[in-house]
Amino acid sequence: MKDQNVSQANFETDARHPIKTRHPIKRRELIDVAMGKAAADIIVQGGRLVNVATAEIYGADVAIKGDRIAAVGDVAYAKGPNTRVIDASGRFITPGLVEGHLHQYHSYLGVTEYVEALLSHGVTATADGFYGPGIVAGVPAVHFFKEAFERMPMRLIFLVPTLSWLQNRELGLTPTPGVGAAELKEILGWEGCYGLEEPPYLPVVEHFPEFLDLFDETLRQRKVITGHAAGITWRQLQAYTAVGVTTDHESVEVNDALAKARAGMTLLMRQGSGCFDVPEVVRTHTEFRIDPRRLAFCADLASPEKLMTEGTIDHAVRVAIAQGVTPVHAIQMATINTAEVFYAQRDFGVVAPGRFADLVLVSNLRDFAIDTVIFGGAEVFKRGKFLIDLPRTEYPGFLRGTVKLPGAVATNDLAFKVDTKRTETEVRVIGVTEGSLETDERRAHMPVVGGIVPADIDKDVLLLAMIDRFGKGTGIGLGFVQGFRLRDGAIASTANAVCENIVIVGTNPIDMAVAANHLATLGGGKVVVRGGKVIASVGLPICGLLSEEPMEAVMSKFSRAFEAIAELGCPLRNPFSQLEFCFACGEIGNIKLSEEGLILIHPQPHKVDVVVA
Amino acid sequence: MKDQNVSQANFETDARHPIKTRHPIKRRELIDVAMGKAAADIIVQGGRLVNVATAEIYGADVAIKGDRIAAVGDVAYAKGPNTRVIDASGRFITPGLVEGHLHQYHSYLGVTEYVEALLSHGVTATADGFYGPGIVAGVPAVHFFKEAFERMPMRLIFLVPTLSWLQNRELGLTPTPGVGAAELKEILGWEGCYGLEEPPYLPVVEHFPEFLDLFDETLRQRKVITGHAAGITWRQLQAYTAVGVTTDHESVEVNDALAKARAGMTLLMRQGSGCFDVPEVVRTHTEFRIDPRRLAFCADLASPEKLMTEGTIDHAVRVAIAQGVTPVHAIQMATINTAEVFYAQRDFGVVAPGRFADLVLVSNLRDFAIDTVIFGGAEVFKRGKFLIDLPRTEYPGFLRGTVKLPGAVATNDLAFKVDTKRTETEVRVIGVTEGSLETDERRAHMPVVGGIVPADIDKDVLLLAMIDRFGKGTGIGLGFVQGFRLRDGAIASTANAVCENIVIVGTNPIDMAVAANHLATLGGGKVVVRGGKVIASVGLPICGLLSEEPMEAVMSKFSRAFEAIAELGCPLRNPFSQLEFCFACGEIGNIKLSEEGLILIHPQPHKVDVVVA
Repeated sequence: MKDQNVSQANFETDARHPIKTRHPIKRRELIDVAMGKAAADIIVQGGRLVNVATAEIYGADVAIKGDRIAAVGDVAYAKGPNTRVIDASGRFITPGLVEGHLHQYHSYLGVTEYVEALLSHGVTATADGFYGPGIVAGVPAVHFFKEAFERMPMRLIFLVPTLSWLQNRELGLTPTPGVGAAELKEILGWEGCYGLEEPPYLPVVEHFPEFLDLFDETLRQRKVITGHAAGITWRQLQAYTAVGVTTDHESVEVNDALAKARAGMTLLMRQGSGCFDVPEVVRTHTEFRIDPRRLAFCADLASPEKLMTEGTIDHAVRVAIAQGVTPVHAIQMATINTAEVFYAQRDFGVVAPGRFADLVLVSNLRDFAIDTVIFGGAEVFKRGKFLIDLPRTEYPGFLRGTVKLPGAVATNDLAFKVDTKRTETEVRVIGVTEGSLETDERRAHMPVVGGIVPADIDKDVLLLAMIDRFGKGTGIGLGFVQGFRLRDGAIASTANAVCENIVIVGTNPIDMAVAANHLATLGGGKVVVRGGKVIASVGLPICGLLSEEPMEAVMSKFSRAFEAIAELGCPLRNPFSQLEFCFACGEIGNIKLSEEGLILIHPQPHKVDVVVA
Repeated sequence: MKDQNVSQANFETDARHPIKTRHPIKRRELIDVAMGKAAADIIVQGGRLVNVATAEIYGADVAIKGDRIAAVGDVAYAKGPNTRVIDASGRFITPGLVEGHLHQYHSYLGVTEYVEALLSHGVTATADGFYGPGIVAGVPAVHFFKEAFERMPMRLIFLVPTLSWLQNRELGLTPTPGVGAAELKEILGWEGCYGLEEPPYLPVVEHFPEFLDLFDETLRQRKVITGHAAGITWRQLQAYTAVGVTTDHESVEVNDALAKARAGMTLLMRQGSGCFDVPEVVRTHTEFRIDPRRLAFCADLASPEKLMTEGTIDHAVRVAIAQGVTPVHAIQMATINTAEVFYAQRDFGVVAPGRFADLVLVSNLRDFAIDTVIFGGAEVFKRGKFLIDLPRTEYPGFLRGTVKLPGAVATNDLAFKVDTKRTETEVRVIGVTEGSLETDERRAHMPVVGGIVPADIDKDVLLLAMIDRFGKGTGIGLGFVQGFRLRDGAIASTANAVCENIVIVGTNPIDMAVAANHLATLGGGKVVVRGGKVIASVGLPICGLLSEEPMEAVMSKFSRAFEAIAELGCPLRNPFSQLEFCFACGEIGNIKLSEEGLILIHPQPHKVDVVVA
């Protein structure tokens, strides 16, 4: 995507500086430029400023020194012989967009490729705690990703990945080494840490009171507790906000969203892959007329394809405007409102003196198509092309080879055995529904053949397996699932939210074993197997979660994998996501499989047998 | 003001707890009440909630546990047999009002009396750094006042008193011991410190770069730099905001205010004694339609009379509504907007779970007359009466006896001597104008009698003196002033902003010496002298700045002093304020007297002789 005609010399990276631009500077160095005693490095000239601080739009130029803004308005006095002018005429200037809650690792993309995708859609700041890598490879992994992001042209709103600790614990399962409870507090103190990433309601209040100590310490450090309030009751909402949680990104219904806003939360309205909540949640403002300052945007989950094509926060702006939000309010929701959640508006989210020079130029506020992206005073993206090379990311050895099996998985390991002489049995089945990540409990009568319960392809009751890949010794959990409609073969992955184990759905144990063993060979990824052969795969060798290939290669491999899955008969739009959510992943859904067996979630998580009768 | 029929037992103070209510609790103790597993201590029932988070008004009850809010809405389930109900029917519930910038010491009232006055007008949180006591008695004084406030039913938004260090230094004069530069950084780290109190523009940027290190540290600690941007130019504004200043309370003109809001500042619109800025500054919203979230209120300076009668933030709400601001927006300006400046909205400024139970009940949003004040879950004030005794404040010895003169001041010390044989000379005169704290330079031809220049009462050119009261050895500065129109006697004070020296205006050196010596006897205060006798005085023995008498006694003494001053011929409405501002006090005005001589402020502060020819 790089424009080879543009010199790279104007964009240097330096691992010693957390913020990488041509000239990272201290705020005091802006004074002489503001006062007219020194020239600006860059002036963005001739544009109309969307001032999100005042909700006004007017003509204003932006004088930049190093990576920060020195003055905004009539700054002609700051133009010197070496000042570069960026022509913004005919365009609007907005702050760089701020992502309030998005997990890089769920995109499968490496750091460089992911940042490139965000930047090309105008996002210049993003909140992330890297909880997936934390589950797989602990504090060093979290630290590695934080530092890798800080080398990128992207403001990282780093948050403590509480799920790296919580993970399997939430359902009473054996955790990966992951991140220890004491380490969460240590991470909270890291320079550049803004608070906690989505400690969910239930464990916090009902199971793990030690979380509350971490909450108190977070508030003491003037940091933020972002929330995850999926499906909580009104009383639980009161309790959750009472302990200091100030955001939620899980609202899917307007009355639920209203209750949260009224309890003082800022709603990070989600518009991501598989979640399209803005049209409903924004009704709190468009229909119920609440103060728009309570609303901001996030994507939470975004596939490479979404990142590349429709974008994330820029897309949410367009959706909000289409729902009747004024462009200025929508842009506030995409910038200052999110920055204020994190008390970061002194650094970004506003085009004003002292802030980082992270700007977006657009020709039309309603289309909100990103024309130019300026990060830290450097033009990084313009009319579809990158003007810089992003720093490559080199991954250390400890992030590789994380699929640890005690030996090759045998077909027999994945055969569902029952201790009965009968020829039929009743089993619990995890029900999967297109368009929902919830799972429901179903029952099926299944034949027993020589003590083994095979899949029943005609009834669409398929085999499901989770295999411990961390050497925990927990082994293999087997069960049944309905909804995938595979007629043949198996699909498997080394990722599922909060466990990150090997997960497989298949029509027979032979293909499933081939899939598991191929994942071990790849060091992690996604595979599709038919007739004992791998017919498609996506290698995710970094933590078994992330690719290190260019985005186009990743997308191409995913496309091939989705084709192969469709060829096996599966009609689901997001088969890998649906597969992941059949397994332990917090409070979403009623019935889950783990490597330790089947679990019913409500009213309290407890293990049950698959076989009912 | 105490209602003797009400038991005091429901309001205990405990010096070990920074927040004093009946039951200071941890947030986690709210969970059981929110969940319906335990009863609330108090339910505020039947009112209509002004929800400043969403800008809505609707019926809602408030369940309180200890000093915090557990749930807001339909909380009937939280009512137990011992739950006390506060009837709010027919009234609106708003958050306790938040004062963004007000100096206790300029009210001359002791801590208890001052807090009582604020509370009776609905203010439950106030920002202060105690810079006056800091100038006089250093860090221990600042620490004492911080702790004294934290024993009161009042949330203190404690700020580092940068003026305790800057004081005389700003004009190149000899400082009091006051607070050292290194101590400012130490104070910044104190528990409960929210940031810096009004480091003014000029010294910060042009004279004292060490301030900028303190700024960086403040931002690193996620704390706030409140500003003082009186009369700065547009370019200076850009520089000031660039280094991280995010508020200003000095806007007096709408275009100036617009520029500050556009630079990202929140405007603390001032409505105090001698400053009535809300009607002009609020035009930024009512006329120029900027986002009202950029506007909040403060009083800055408030006399005991103002505190008692019209109030401060409650008055500002009434003024804003009268100017066309909607009641909800005006109440946001008085609560959440101010809290957000300090990143304190998780603790106060909103009626929502987890926040302190600081509430105000009013019958009518437009009158906004305070009916009931609830602090930390305790009803403290209702229909004109206090329901509690506020804790008394005991002042330690080091805050007393702070008027230190090397010996009695002699009449001869205050005679203005010139080394000339001529019978007339030309002198510089500090010009004072009713209604303004600015001073202008004038000239006067004065008679010389035996080498002495007496006051010229007919021309209203009077003697002015500042006397070092800290043992600095800087002695006595003498000069002339016009505007007081005294026909007789002298008036004197131990307070003037940033110097806190003895200051005197008089018609003759005899009465002036009597005044100075009487101030030393009082340990500080205000005196009016006529014919060699003290005809009125207000003792301010705490730091020479504060009374320890009840408010009524202080007001009565001030009334008598103002009468006496009027009897001497002075028509000024605020003669003590006008007197104070004839002396060194930062960048306000052009010509000032100090104990080291006369100073012209612009373009750079420099000493000049009083005698011109």
